[in-house]
Amino acid sequence: MGNSMAHPLYVGLDVGGTSMKGGVVDDTGKSLGSVSLPTEAHRGQEFGLARMCETIRHAVAAADVTMKDIAAIGVATPGTMDIPAGIILDPPNLKPWRDVPVRDHIEKVFKLPTAFQNDANAAAYGEFWAGAGKSVDSMVFFTLGTGIGAGIIIGDMILEGKHSHGGELGHMKIEVTNGRQCGCGHFGCLEAYASATSVVKRTMERLAQTKAKSPLREHAKKEGGLTSRDIFEVAAAGDALAEKIVDETAFYLAVGAANAMHTIDPEMIAFGGGMTGAGGPFLDLIKKHIKKLALPVPAEKTIVSFASLGSDAGYIGAAACGRQLAMRRKKNKE
Amino acid sequence: MGNSMAHPLYVGLDVGGTSMKGGVVDDTGKSLGSVSLPTEAHRGQEFGLARMCETIRHAVAAADVTMKDIAAIGVATPGTMDIPAGIILDPPNLKPWRDVPVRDHIEKVFKLPTAFQNDANAAAYGEFWAGAGKSVDSMVFFTLGTGIGAGIIIGDMILEGKHSHGGELGHMKIEVTNGRQCGCGHFGCLEAYASATSVVKRTMERLAQTKAKSPLREHAKKEGGLTSRDIFEVAAAGDALAEKIVDETAFYLAVGAANAMHTIDPEMIAFGGGMTGAGGPFLDLIKKHIKKLALPVPAEKTIVSFASLGSDAGYIGAAACGRQLAMRRKKNKE
Repeated sequence: MGNSMAHPLYVGLDVGGTSMKGGVVDDTGKSLGSVSLPTEAHRGQEFGLARMCETIRHAVAAADVTMKDIAAIGVATPGTMDIPAGIILDPPNLKPWRDVPVRDHIEKVFKLPTAFQNDANAAAYGEFWAGAGKSVDSMVFFTLGTGIGAGIIIGDMILEGKHSHGGELGHMKIEVTNGRQCGCGHFGCLEAYASATSVVKRTMERLAQTKAKSPLREHAKKEGGLTSRDIFEVAAAGDALAEKIVDETAFYLAVGAANAMHTIDPEMIAFGGGMTGAGGPFLDLIKKHIKKLALPVPAEKTIVSFASLGSDAGYIGAAACGRQLAMRRKKNKE
Repeated sequence: MGNSMAHPLYVGLDVGGTSMKGGVVDDTGKSLGSVSLPTEAHRGQEFGLARMCETIRHAVAAADVTMKDIAAIGVATPGTMDIPAGIILDPPNLKPWRDVPVRDHIEKVFKLPTAFQNDANAAAYGEFWAGAGKSVDSMVFFTLGTGIGAGIIIGDMILEGKHSHGGELGHMKIEVTNGRQCGCGHFGCLEAYASATSVVKRTMERLAQTKAKSPLREHAKKEGGLTSRDIFEVAAAGDALAEKIVDETAFYLAVGAANAMHTIDPEMIAFGGGMTGAGGPFLDLIKKHIKKLALPVPAEKTIVSFASLGSDAGYIGAAACGRQLAMRRKKNKE
């Protein structure tokens, strides 16, 4: 083992619909290396549990340490779930898994304290511990992808909620009259306006309304479709329609931020996920709208920032959950 | 002192724009009596502070105990405020008060541990400690009056927020396109749809749109106006327009509840304030809309209830804040 790592060490595992990422993290939140393996959920949950253990072992090997160096493990998965029970219930992105006892399985295999957490909550806790929120004492984190995940950290507490639905901010209603339909089936959810998928959908609808020339239309024809990244790039090049879509997206995200300010009133609001690749100008747009939407005090004082850990936030946060569990158990023994 | 009270005792004071209510509460949350005095904010903040001390003394006398029986005091006031500093900053309902050091003043006069809290937070904590939320471990509370106040309790923690804006749920945006203007100056806030004042406003607008006969119109003419209570009564008597207004109000409150479920995911959502006088049928309407608006698990499992302490919630909750403070100080000394 090298000398530059702060002991003890923790393994974090972030299970996603397509792949799972595992990594070893030291006591300061520094990653010592990570690996990514395909989830292949269709092969069933027994395979999935074995794949999780395999990823944890590979991560430990990649960090050039051994399982004996590891003090605890944290596993993060998408929902629906029962967090205190350590079980994935009926995850839409991990079909056909059902009622998978993730935490107990991992704990039995590795005989180490094992924490279980929602993936967006874990990413929020990762950013809070070792990323954008390192120096704040409360944070609301939004991660913008196919959907909008979110996590709320107050003090050192992850707001899990009574029924493991804390921080499901992608499903806050922001439009009750003629709201857009969300992937959840309901109407008017933030996710239906400001996820990467929704940004593309709003753009395609706008293009369908006219026959006017547009670089977006040309791009969509040539590439057989659009990504949110394409839209942000075309906006950056000065196209008016793309600029409008981007500004509206910033507005919707600012509504989500203002609602979080008027509920949690955190020290920081952070945004992560692919769309934040659009960079500083997009963050400035979000901030501009927040100033107009939020009550004066939080509008002025809340720190609004992009996340800093990228796709490592999930496993780093999962490791942090393992660390929190190990510290609690140690404290209870003392 | 009687024998039926659980010692120690606490004084709670709930300062409002029109009157302030003080009461003595025992260690189980039982009120031993209360008094109400006019606030007369226009007479200035020095007068206001003296009136607070006077109300506290009267409350102690009304409970037939002495200041020596009191272990701590809690004071709740409307905002804006700095809760940790114990200061009212610039309260719209207590003009011309400004930067009033409430907590330190009360503490100096009575030489007792003194807690300071936002009035809606205190009412939430009162309901949590001794009212509707007595047996739950987390709660979001909405109080429906001229505006919509709210408070969030998680475990034994009042979610004050980093900038004393936690639980300002009346100002969550629920309509981003053509939203109604709120008293705060912004658009689309829950309060602009579902406060008692907004219910009257929506009704008057609807009446102005037609010349059709309506018992609401007749009542408004005869009485020179309408109250939310009138509207609920006319609805209960079967008038279609009033029924529609009431159902829409229940819908908006359900949106607020669903958003709280998707953020805090509490064990209970409770509604208080005058409008809940409409009783069980109104609660059933709110529940019906929540079932359709919330994600399946919280929609099924969250307890939705009316508050039970009425206008005593504020001072009982303020007393509970004093109790919490005294217990913390005692623990730190041990």
